[in-house]
Amino acid sequence: MSDHQRILIVGGVAGGASCAARCRRLSETAEIIMFDRGPHVSFANCGLPYYVGDVIKDEEHLLVATPEMFRQRFNIDVRLRSEVVRIDRERQLVEVNDLEQGAIYTEHYDALVLSPGARAIRPDMPGIQLPGIFSVRTIPDSRRIRQWIDQYEAREAVVVGGGYIGMEMVENLHKRGLAVTVVEKQPQVMPLLDPEMAAPIHESLIGQKVGLRLNEGVERFDPGEGHRLALTLASGGRLETDLVIMCIGVRPNIDLARAADLAIGESGGIQVDPHMRSSDPCIWAVGDAVEVRDVVTGATAVVPLAGPANRQGRIAADVIMGRQHGFRGVQGTSVVGVLGQVAAFTGASEKTLKRLGMWEQMEKIYLHPGHHAGYYPGAVPISLKLIFTKKGGRIVGAQAVGQAGVEKRIDVIAMAIQMHATVFDLEESELCYAPQFGSAKDPINMAGMIAANVLRGDASLAHWEDLEQSDALILDVRDVEEYNQDHLDDALHVPLDELRARMDALPRDREIRTYCFVGQRSYYAARALSQHGFTVKNISGGFKTYLMHESAKYL
Amino acid sequence: MSDHQRILIVGGVAGGASCAARCRRLSETAEIIMFDRGPHVSFANCGLPYYVGDVIKDEEHLLVATPEMFRQRFNIDVRLRSEVVRIDRERQLVEVNDLEQGAIYTEHYDALVLSPGARAIRPDMPGIQLPGIFSVRTIPDSRRIRQWIDQYEAREAVVVGGGYIGMEMVENLHKRGLAVTVVEKQPQVMPLLDPEMAAPIHESLIGQKVGLRLNEGVERFDPGEGHRLALTLASGGRLETDLVIMCIGVRPNIDLARAADLAIGESGGIQVDPHMRSSDPCIWAVGDAVEVRDVVTGATAVVPLAGPANRQGRIAADVIMGRQHGFRGVQGTSVVGVLGQVAAFTGASEKTLKRLGMWEQMEKIYLHPGHHAGYYPGAVPISLKLIFTKKGGRIVGAQAVGQAGVEKRIDVIAMAIQMHATVFDLEESELCYAPQFGSAKDPINMAGMIAANVLRGDASLAHWEDLEQSDALILDVRDVEEYNQDHLDDALHVPLDELRARMDALPRDREIRTYCFVGQRSYYAARALSQHGFTVKNISGGFKTYLMHESAKYL
Ligand SMILES: Cc1cc2nc3c(=O)[nH]c(=O)nc-3n(C[C@H](O)[C@H](O)[C@H](O)COP(=O)(O)OP(=O)(O)OC[C@H]3O[C@@H](n4cnc5c(N)ncnc54)[C@H](O)[C@@H]3O)c2cc1C
Ligand SMILES: Cc1cc2nc3c(=O)[nH]c(=O)nc-3n(C[C@H](O)[C@H](O)[C@H](O)COP(=O)(O)OP(=O)(O)OC[C@H]3O[C@@H](n4cnc5c(N)ncnc54)[C@H](O)[C@@H]3O)c2cc1C
Ligand SMILES: CC(C)(COP(=O)(O)OP(=O)(O)OC[C@H]1O[C@@H](n2cnc3c(N)ncnc32)[C@H](O)[C@@H]1OP(=O)(O)O)[C@@H](O)C(=O)NCCC(=O)NCCS
Ligand SMILES: CC(C)(COP(=O)(O)OP(=O)(O)OC[C@H]1O[C@@H](n2cnc3c(N)ncnc32)[C@H](O)[C@@H]1OP(=O)(O)O)[C@@H](O)C(=O)NCCC(=O)NCCS
Repeated sequence: MSDHQRILIVGGVAGGASCAARCRRLSETAEIIMFDRGPHVSFANCGLPYYVGDVIKDEEHLLVATPEMFRQRFNIDVRLRSEVVRIDRERQLVEVNDLEQGAIYTEHYDALVLSPGARAIRPDMPGIQLPGIFSVRTIPDSRRIRQWIDQYEAREAVVVGGGYIGMEMVENLHKRGLAVTVVEKQPQVMPLLDPEMAAPIHESLIGQKVGLRLNEGVERFDPGEGHRLALTLASGGRLETDLVIMCIGVRPNIDLARAADLAIGESGGIQVDPHMRSSDPCIWAVGDAVEVRDVVTGATAVVPLAGPANRQGRIAADVIMGRQHGFRGVQGTSVVGVLGQVAAFTGASEKTLKRLGMWEQMEKIYLHPGHHAGYYPGAVPISLKLIFTKKGGRIVGAQAVGQAGVEKRIDVIAMAIQMHATVFDLEESELCYAPQFGSAKDPINMAGMIAANVLRGDASLAHWEDLEQSDALILDVRDVEEYNQDHLDDALHVPLDELRARMDALPRDREIRTYCFVGQRSYYAARALSQHGFTVKNISGGFKTYLMHESAKYL
Repeated sequence: MSDHQRILIVGGVAGGASCAARCRRLSETAEIIMFDRGPHVSFANCGLPYYVGDVIKDEEHLLVATPEMFRQRFNIDVRLRSEVVRIDRERQLVEVNDLEQGAIYTEHYDALVLSPGARAIRPDMPGIQLPGIFSVRTIPDSRRIRQWIDQYEAREAVVVGGGYIGMEMVENLHKRGLAVTVVEKQPQVMPLLDPEMAAPIHESLIGQKVGLRLNEGVERFDPGEGHRLALTLASGGRLETDLVIMCIGVRPNIDLARAADLAIGESGGIQVDPHMRSSDPCIWAVGDAVEVRDVVTGATAVVPLAGPANRQGRIAADVIMGRQHGFRGVQGTSVVGVLGQVAAFTGASEKTLKRLGMWEQMEKIYLHPGHHAGYYPGAVPISLKLIFTKKGGRIVGAQAVGQAGVEKRIDVIAMAIQMHATVFDLEESELCYAPQFGSAKDPINMAGMIAANVLRGDASLAHWEDLEQSDALILDVRDVEEYNQDHLDDALHVPLDELRARMDALPRDREIRTYCFVGQRSYYAARALSQHGFTVKNISGGFKTYLMHESAKYL
């Protein structure tokens, strides 16, 4: 393409602004105009919940860049309150509605980049338009929530939807002293996680007096007393509250693209090739609005995350400027912090793999190592689930929950997945170790060792959810005090340290399944038993994982 | 090998204990005896400094496992205070000195594992035997230090040697309220790091009133007043102090091996093959005592780290039990926390690469991104140095210093190095992002982007240390206030945002080198200038890196 091209960009935040800035870095001669229908560009969407929570105190802090900065630093023409309302692909024009002046004008493009993001889903239900029901997508949204809380001295809030933005709103409303109730259609919050991995979040929410209404939906909103709102739930229950935050997900903004007859993918996002080019060779699309390919499962999806949006914007700029640069797809790496718990995720979950019919080829393990050496004060456990292929041990996904050191382990595994690492690679990783930072065998190594043992046939695994289909003898190898405190009803109890002496009492004609608290001692027991001729499986992740499964079932 | 073999293990801590436990897991029938000349096995060497600092309050916490536990859980015969004094390779016997009884006896082995560790270097200098001069290698060592501090109400301490154990001793003595002085022969502490990367540690030490005597050695110790010690330094200076900790490094314990004529490597460690087998097919060696291969440089070295020791012990067990398992080598990943600063490291440093004559093939970049999003309160910078090959961008090493988020980034890069990743992989990594945990473009991505720009020829790099050899014009593109505060004497000042307007004033016949505070704005400037026909290089890492270099030079 010519260097004197005219590049128009629709949407000036994560994807759009990154694209614009990179375009300028690659070409001093291109004309670059960036439109946003809102009053800001380059703002920190991801900071909005924390602005509501007054953790970020100053609205200005949310502005990562301003139109002036774009003009001065990048010689980019930023037009705020300017909505692109139509694309004329044939003539390579866009129609822009100047929302201040109310006037519509057109601009010609050589290259057009769509980064219009997504919009919060607001289902068409009775009362949804009532004041006091908010979404969190823009700075004005958050400002309105803050004002409402202040004005009405709000004490209670309902967050509808328990995804990560919902959780961040819980965190922040809770921090402001509001009593928060979460209403979530699914049987768990953080639907990205497998249910048992969300259980620690549930317990933490409940422990901190956040109301948790799972398997529950809102049917209608009615005005309550004064400014208050009355919610009728699907179960018939009612809730009164001072405000409602709708966090039931987002939908790609594809109106423009659809009206211009650009191809839309199955998942509802704009279809793009790896170069972020839409079905029109002069139009690129990036960010929340596009459909991406999951590098692990190969499935297509819309994945509204800031990292991919930023990088896609940068890639689109490269391609517009005639370079070969491709987006490798997403792996869904994400993290959320809520009330002291951190949950992080990368790759594919068990439920996704089941939905895609890929679970047969997979194995999983659980572990609960300390986030640093146990002998150094303050170690807290990380509950980690690792999914890998039965053949070859390719790492497919990981989920972790805990109070510290969580996102570090997921970041390392994210890199491992990106590089097609196997569990045998994790087994031999060399990571930072000093007592306050990790362990000589880091949780990452431990995960690799446990998984490698499974794949090498040294440790037959069982999982709690398979228990009912078996008539195996359940063997609890924990200490007496642990056993007495709580155990499986029909478990036989032989503490690990007495196992060799008491082996003769165990059946040789029946499968034995061992468990302890986290799965390590029961692995030791299983190794010993199997070498003495018993048929034995170790239940991965131990009683702690059992409790997570149970908690997920009975909430 | 037969399953009924007799496995003797010399040294019962990181490597030895791991090996013993794994041997038992792989074989119920082997006879396993583990000897240690000390009063403990399986203790947390790495916790010793923190026991001195009373962070770890209870000696018992340092005992990760006990002889009883080994007996009961693993059916392993642990013999404390039992020194293996000779190996008779021909008859496959060891001679054991029972230090309690003073009696020597022999034991036969089928497989012998040496994990005798290393000993603290105590140079033969006048006064080295005086009371009050300590090493930190065992629990009794630390106990003696604690007692000395308490008994004499010590106020001052000298730490000789500024490596990572020295730094941990500084951290802990400082925490106990002692005035600490570090005496270090080299011009920097943390000699693993390149000098400029150690500079922030120096500043933090000085800022917290730790005495720093670099380029300095101890010549002799003399008794001082009462319990006190007088140190004479190489420079002629004198120091009086309440106690001295010797941390000038360790030397592999190879006496046993050497006396038995096992091959010793160039670097002074026992020579082993990737299966941890020594030159005698019935003898394995692991841990601090062995020579290992650096996976990045291919050089051999002794690398006294707990992670490798643990994994080597496990591998030796596998091989003894007839499995194919190899050690992949080390990459030197390590971390230290000292007075609020964290320094972490993986791969090869610039100085190592120079020493090995490999630097010609390498390029490096510096960056100083926040440890999480800047708009979220509390972000602190990480100074990151990334080394990669000029051809292909293979990641070769990384060093990072900062107050938070440091070891996370090094762990991710450690995994990247393990998997032979390139800077182009870092550029496209998908890592955890929420405002309190990272950035949409994580420091890892940023490092990848910056390096990729260099390799793609989009950003010509210069480094501060090359400045003197060039007559380039130095262009400072920071804001007026930044420039006024401090700048390079002969720099021309044109703030980035005025650059396009003032370009005509710049010379077209002379190379321009741009800098800003961290290297980002000067990169933007360099991009703009180069497209307008100027010959320009961006000085990597900006003024902040300059200050680090200067600080390293003039301390
Ligand atoms: C509350 C909240 C918290 C979040 N937290 C995280 C997090 O912690 N981690 C994470 O990875 N991601 C997070 N995200 C998601 C992240 O912000 C998005 O993935 C990212 O911003 C998407 O970038 P984008 O460029 O596609 O869209 P956006 O950044 O949303 O930008 C789209 C812009 O386009 C404008 N626009 C739309 N249509 C038009 C039009 N026709 N004409 C002109 N302008 C138009 C909009 O006004 C908007 O400003 C969060 C999002 C929200 C809302
Ligand atoms: C103060 C300190 C802090 C450290 N901090 C860290 C850290 O933060 N991170 C990290 O990765 N590493 C750290 N290390 C290093 C780590 O502890 C070692 O790398 C690791 O312990 C080496 O394991 P090893 O089995 O080779 O030797 P060791 O763990 O030292 O065990 C060797 C044992 O062998 C015994 N022994 C020796 N000779 C004989 C013999 N002839 N007969 C019988 N017994 C014998 C010794 O008594 C000793 O108990 C630290 C070390 C120290 C001393
Ligand atoms: C502010 C914004 C326009 C920044 O875009 P940007 O100019 O690409 O700048 P970034 O701060 O992301 O820095 C990346 C660029 O600086 C370069 N860079 C960063 N540090 C550098 C350093 N020390 N030396 C050299 N180059 C450096 C990178 O290589 C990259 O340039 P490239 O793309 O040409 O390779 C855009 O990210 C934005 O609008 N962000 C806010 C919105 C948002 O992301 N919301 C969602 C998350 S809350
Ligand atoms: C205590 C010590 C004997 C432990 O050795 P160990 O029995 O190998 O036990 P670890 O705690 O390291 O756990 C590793 C084993 O448990 C298994 N494991 C851990 N968690 C598990 C879980 N949840 N489920 C199943 N298996 C698990 C691992 O797979 C591994 O077994 P493998 O080697 O057969 O694969 C040894 O590490 C030691 O002496 N440490 C202290 C000394 C030291 O390391 N000092 C230097 C650092 S301070």
